Amino acid sequence: MSEPLSSELLGKMNAYWRAANYLSVGQIYLKDNPLLERPLSMDDIKPRLLGHWGTTPGLNFIYVHLNRIIKAHNINMIYIIGPGHGGPGIVANTYLEGSYTEIYPHIEQGEDGIKRLFRQFSWPYGIPSHVAPETPGSIHEGGELGYSLLHAYGAALDNPDLIVTCIVGDGEAETGPCATSWHSNKFLNPITDGAVLPILHLNGYKIANPTVLSRIPQSELEALMRGYGYNPYFIEGSDPTTMHQQMAALLDKVYAEIRAIQKKARDANDPTRPAWPMIVMRTPKGWTGPKEVDGKPVEGTWRAHQVPFSTVHGNPGHLKLLEEWLSSYKPQELFDEQGQFRDEFAEIAPKGRLRMGMNPHANGGLLMQPLELPDFADYEVKIKQPGGTEAEATRVLGYFLRDVMKANLKNKNFRVFGPDETASNRLDAVYEVAEKRWIAETLPVDENLQADGRVMEILSEHMCQGWLEGYLLTGRHGFFSCYEAFIHIIDSMFNQHAKWLKVTCDIPWRKPIASLNYLLSSHVWRQDHNGFSHQDPGFIDHVANKKADVVRIYLPPDANTLLSVGSHCLRSQHYVNLIIAGKQPAPVWLTMEQAIRHCTAGLGVWDWASNDDGDPDVVMACAGDVPTLETLAAVSLLRQHIPDLKIRVVNVVDLMTLQPVAEHPHGLPDEDFDRMFTKDKPVIFAFHGYATLIHRLTYRRTNHGSIHVRGYKEEGTTTTPFDMCVLNDMDRFTLALDAVRRVPRLRQLTDEAMQKFTEKRQAHKLYVSQYGEDLPEVRNWSWSGGGKGATSQDTGGDNV
Amino acid sequence: MSEPLSSELLGKMNAYWRAANYLSVGQIYLKDNPLLERPLSMDDIKPRLLGHWGTTPGLNFIYVHLNRIIKAHNINMIYIIGPGHGGPGIVANTYLEGSYTEIYPHIEQGEDGIKRLFRQFSWPYGIPSHVAPETPGSIHEGGELGYSLLHAYGAALDNPDLIVTCIVGDGEAETGPCATSWHSNKFLNPITDGAVLPILHLNGYKIANPTVLSRIPQSELEALMRGYGYNPYFIEGSDPTTMHQQMAALLDKVYAEIRAIQKKARDANDPTRPAWPMIVMRTPKGWTGPKEVDGKPVEGTWRAHQVPFSTVHGNPGHLKLLEEWLSSYKPQELFDEQGQFRDEFAEIAPKGRLRMGMNPHANGGLLMQPLELPDFADYEVKIKQPGGTEAEATRVLGYFLRDVMKANLKNKNFRVFGPDETASNRLDAVYEVAEKRWIAETLPVDENLQADGRVMEILSEHMCQGWLEGYLLTGRHGFFSCYEAFIHIIDSMFNQHAKWLKVTCDIPWRKPIASLNYLLSSHVWRQDHNGFSHQDPGFIDHVANKKADVVRIYLPPDANTLLSVGSHCLRSQHYVNLIIAGKQPAPVWLTMEQAIRHCTAGLGVWDWASNDDGDPDVVMACAGDVPTLETLAAVSLLRQHIPDLKIRVVNVVDLMTLQPVAEHPHGLPDEDFDRMFTKDKPVIFAFHGYATLIHRLTYRRTNHGSIHVRGYKEEGTTTTPFDMCVLNDMDRFTLALDAVRRVPRLRQLTDEAMQKFTEKRQAHKLYVSQYGEDLPEVRNWSWSGGGKGATSQDTGGDNV
Repeated sequence: MSEPLSSELLGKMNAYWRAANYLSVGQIYLKDNPLLERPLSMDDIKPRLLGHWGTTPGLNFIYVHLNRIIKAHNINMIYIIGPGHGGPGIVANTYLEGSYTEIYPHIEQGEDGIKRLFRQFSWPYGIPSHVAPETPGSIHEGGELGYSLLHAYGAALDNPDLIVTCIVGDGEAETGPCATSWHSNKFLNPITDGAVLPILHLNGYKIANPTVLSRIPQSELEALMRGYGYNPYFIEGSDPTTMHQQMAALLDKVYAEIRAIQKKARDANDPTRPAWPMIVMRTPKGWTGPKEVDGKPVEGTWRAHQVPFSTVHGNPGHLKLLEEWLSSYKPQELFDEQGQFRDEFAEIAPKGRLRMGMNPHANGGLLMQPLELPDFADYEVKIKQPGGTEAEATRVLGYFLRDVMKANLKNKNFRVFGPDETASNRLDAVYEVAEKRWIAETLPVDENLQADGRVMEILSEHMCQGWLEGYLLTGRHGFFSCYEAFIHIIDSMFNQHAKWLKVTCDIPWRKPIASLNYLLSSHVWRQDHNGFSHQDPGFIDHVANKKADVVRIYLPPDANTLLSVGSHCLRSQHYVNLIIAGKQPAPVWLTMEQAIRHCTAGLGVWDWASNDDGDPDVVMACAGDVPTLETLAAVSLLRQHIPDLKIRVVNVVDLMTLQPVAEHPHGLPDEDFDRMFTKDKPVIFAFHGYATLIHRLTYRRTNHGSIHVRGYKEEGTTTTPFDMCVLNDMDRFTLALDAVRRVPRLRQLTDEAMQKFTEKRQAHKLYVSQYGEDLPEVRNWSWSGGGKGATSQDTGGDNV
Repeated sequence: MSEPLSSELLGKMNAYWRAANYLSVGQIYLKDNPLLERPLSMDDIKPRLLGHWGTTPGLNFIYVHLNRIIKAHNINMIYIIGPGHGGPGIVANTYLEGSYTEIYPHIEQGEDGIKRLFRQFSWPYGIPSHVAPETPGSIHEGGELGYSLLHAYGAALDNPDLIVTCIVGDGEAETGPCATSWHSNKFLNPITDGAVLPILHLNGYKIANPTVLSRIPQSELEALMRGYGYNPYFIEGSDPTTMHQQMAALLDKVYAEIRAIQKKARDANDPTRPAWPMIVMRTPKGWTGPKEVDGKPVEGTWRAHQVPFSTVHGNPGHLKLLEEWLSSYKPQELFDEQGQFRDEFAEIAPKGRLRMGMNPHANGGLLMQPLELPDFADYEVKIKQPGGTEAEATRVLGYFLRDVMKANLKNKNFRVFGPDETASNRLDAVYEVAEKRWIAETLPVDENLQADGRVMEILSEHMCQGWLEGYLLTGRHGFFSCYEAFIHIIDSMFNQHAKWLKVTCDIPWRKPIASLNYLLSSHVWRQDHNGFSHQDPGFIDHVANKKADVVRIYLPPDANTLLSVGSHCLRSQHYVNLIIAGKQPAPVWLTMEQAIRHCTAGLGVWDWASNDDGDPDVVMACAGDVPTLETLAAVSLLRQHIPDLKIRVVNVVDLMTLQPVAEHPHGLPDEDFDRMFTKDKPVIFAFHGYATLIHRLTYRRTNHGSIHVRGYKEEGTTTTPFDMCVLNDMDRFTLALDAVRRVPRLRQLTDEAMQKFTEKRQAHKLYVSQYGEDLPEVRNWSWSGGGKGATSQDTGGDNV
């Protein structure tokens, strides 16, 4: 291999690398004596030694080399670190290049700054150990492994100028999400997107085990990467001089190959999938660290993973070892007397926004342009009376999304994501404007595939989520639709993203990004084809555990409210919005005017369905489309059989309104809650999810003791829609019985009604098992307005 | 390729396949006229057409061919179906081979049986659409895609005689868990384990999209499989005769290769990883189904995925199409006048337990032998006084697990699983008896790797979970330790397993299997090295949403209680047991005798820490090791500063005891709960997880309104252990303040104490940010017994 580096440049690059390594070790160990100006003493050592050394020197090595090619070619590049626990390395490099001090002026260039840099690391009220939001240049913490390549590809979409270098650790490479994410290259358009340069870093070990990919023959690893569609290059070694030359030559080659691929595709306007280059770099774990500690090998083994020796206090031998280790980087050569990184080395880094720590793509809020949104009210499903018209709510939303897509095509900053479910979830109108991205083989029979499609579909919730996160974090917008049950597949990814959002709320230089919008459809109550395995509404609970600052949960009861909620979510920033809505034909209850008012309040009394005259016997509350339907059907039954019963119907769209104001900014003030749900009347609450969530949200409310919730209770199979309600005791008959049982003043009058409801429920079971479909009176039921005492329907959806 | 099938056998096999396809289509469409004895009429058609046709004929094709080699070689084989929505195919095949009727006698052989077979499918109170627990021969529902290969490998472990054929759909192949699970071959020992034969079924489409692996060049796909370490064989076509000959020849070859690999390894006692054969089978989606419907191609496209045409009612053209389709299988040739599958075809299936529908490995409870357990009390950490000794709880459990492993080595039916975290979680004593399974390259520096190791470690929670499920479902035992935050990675896999357990409770012929045991350590409160991304206690909430029949949650406060809980869980059957325990040195509170009593009750008053004399001012409750520590420290503070305060300490090990009896079988009866927590005194509850869970479990209890819970509230970073408590308001000072604030009779007396506690809390923040470690008084705190009014310490852990 050629030797592209002059000996001078090689020397400077090696010095730069040594400096980064020195600052990394210093962060892990030192709280004082940052430049070793006096012999190291126990007092200089942090009381708790925390952090991860093993991966760090490799990350630093690559950083220095990327700096060289960025500078040589003015490359717009960001750096995604799969092994994010190598945080000290990235902090060190962004400090050396000046980004860190620019963002955090108290960490100035010089001895005091270095001391503070060291001390703050993994220190209470300091900075975290990982490549966290606090770290300049990062969009990927890497705390939970598996998502680096997905974030990289998400970032590269629609950024034709950008190269995203992504370090994949060989530990991370064993995870499922990472193993499938290599296939992202079948979704990257070489004309309209940027490039991703994966560097698989084989340092051979995880916490305590060898890694699989470092222990298969190189021929297999090469086959694997070629099988994934890449053109792999291998580099291996530990001698710095040799490695510098090899790495420089390799990066020159790989960079040229990327540009050649892009030029060819762009010149010929031919998006045919190329074999993108990737690098496999095999270097020792804990490279340049102590070879041995206490007689056991450390460099090149799993023992270098965290702190190579962590008992310095009380162990003079280890103190000496640390001093030797730190001195081996020759800090006096690297920093001048004031502790300034010497100019001759500093100059080899790129400047300004070319520095990876200052690239605006890694602080996406800086680049974000708000979406242009058509007026969602234009998509209204017109109704003459509540429930008088049916619509597939998500299909209606699809028309709106189509036009959102259309309005923002010019900005190329909006994409729709789905795990093979966009059409199944009835959002396929979007294809009229932008089809599905596909950079693989096609057949004449295919439909709606497009090399520059803007709908991202692959049968992997992980990939959809990861791409979307990368896309949002770099300043764009997205919408993810998924089957409700299977969104749990990305529970942990949601966690990490919500944590990222939460932390960035408190970092002034991080600008807000677009919200992550989930639409869950094919939900628990409507899984006719699939049954029990497809029934799980628990993602709501999972989301509700996260910080109120960053999560929102919506259960629009019909198509018009879904439009209102959907538009609101697309306009919002820095949240995770969870929307749950059915795709089957279902009644539309509210006009658009009513829907807007209802969604703005988040919950409200439906006067048109109530006959309580301000003093109900019972409150029938509901959240979710199927619960709303069953509740209104129950109200109809009650109205018919017990006309004297005064019923108030409350519908909840924004679940967070149920919480006290102190718990969530959307919380309804207690006095309003008391007015709406009363202080002492029974509340029968039909809920889309597990009943306990309603209790957990309302347990501090005055009337909590009277709230009786029906929801999903883990019963289900392949059965009819109504039978699902019956199996889970959320059917209209049960709700009606619940109401009657709880109104003592009526109990004598209602024996007959109760018997009627019980009989109907039994009749259902007989009918459905005999005929395989629901009772005609259930299938054909529609809201017929108020019985005795009902208020006029056209009073609209006034909220208390 | 050779033609191993005589024309007679080929004819019979093709007839068998036609019969399976016929019965599959019949299940989807028909409720009557099962043998087409009269022209099909609308009345014969189900009202709701549900199910999935696309994958089914391919599954049926493979089934028939596996039957042939099973019979030819007496192979012990089970069949795992990744595309589990192909349920009708497996139901059809198990019916044809007689398994179905043996298990479900009312689905007899003959016309009436076939009619019932058809009618029950996807019918209310019938059977589900997938390869569900109801389906004979299944251990894998396949409702959520991604886990088939993992289940297959889990089943093959320690079953040297077994071959697990695993169909991987090309949709499923896009998922993350599936993409990494191919690497399971680095963990399969060809001597002591069975074989897995993966068949990647490329039918080209998912619900609505082409699949990635069907749209890359065959050279890439071959490289991918070779890269994964397999020896791939390709078969492609649609002409039945040709395909039968090719498939028979291929299976002969592949079977011989498997046996040759095993013989070579076993004869030479050489477990070196072989390149196991695998098959890529490319056949049209919806093979043999309608070519076109309404002018659009169906066979070979995504349109064949579910029901190829679902509007038969009111569409005579479609009725005719269905009749032609059904007739194309020539049912009169296949079934006699009574509807019996003709003997000449039936005879080619294997008999008895060789039938895949009757293989006992697919009903693991039949084979399960209880674990032999040493007496956990022998591992007691001896204490002289509560908290007087420290121990790393999980390390102590590790000694017990080591001996569990030892005691069951002879049965080869116990394995420990962990995502590179077994040693990190301090369970490494197990290696003394059984090391880590590793069938890849090794280096001299490696430790504790063994070709026949019994600890399964890979950096993939998905793989650990999937292998373990496969191992349990085939009648063995296991123990899975994981970092608490990252267990969310398998939230959805847990869901599916819990659903499987729930359903099998109601299926008499399915015998109970061993529980799935989770130990979560490196938990939310002790993440010194990693910070916020590693802090999430929400798996408890996730588990608590599942059916009470199948889930148990334990929070042992110390090493001795962990031993008691651990042993109990290993002995239990058919649950998911969730245990959460720390790995850091922490006080041991109870003697083993006390621990056993405490764990048996599940919760109890700690008299030795209480001074309430039966009438407390305040109840200080806790669940989890860190909350227990902080609670007892708070009690110390209160005792010191407000000796008059009468405190009762309650510790909860078994979280489900908090629920009412009606909700969970472990629930404490209301009168006992009232006695323990009082009916009206303030309860300060320090909880390991999110506070809301305690409210949700206790909201029906008399004293619920007085329960004040402190828990994790999504605050965290890389900081000290105590600072984590402070950040989340679960520290001793806050708990003490909480208690004082809620005891009105003392409020005047306690201003000074309150000020003291507040000052101490502030002092902590100053100290920790200055010195980087916790206040000495916090670090060095230990329980020093009761102050005024404390009962004697040796009254032990008596429970109310």
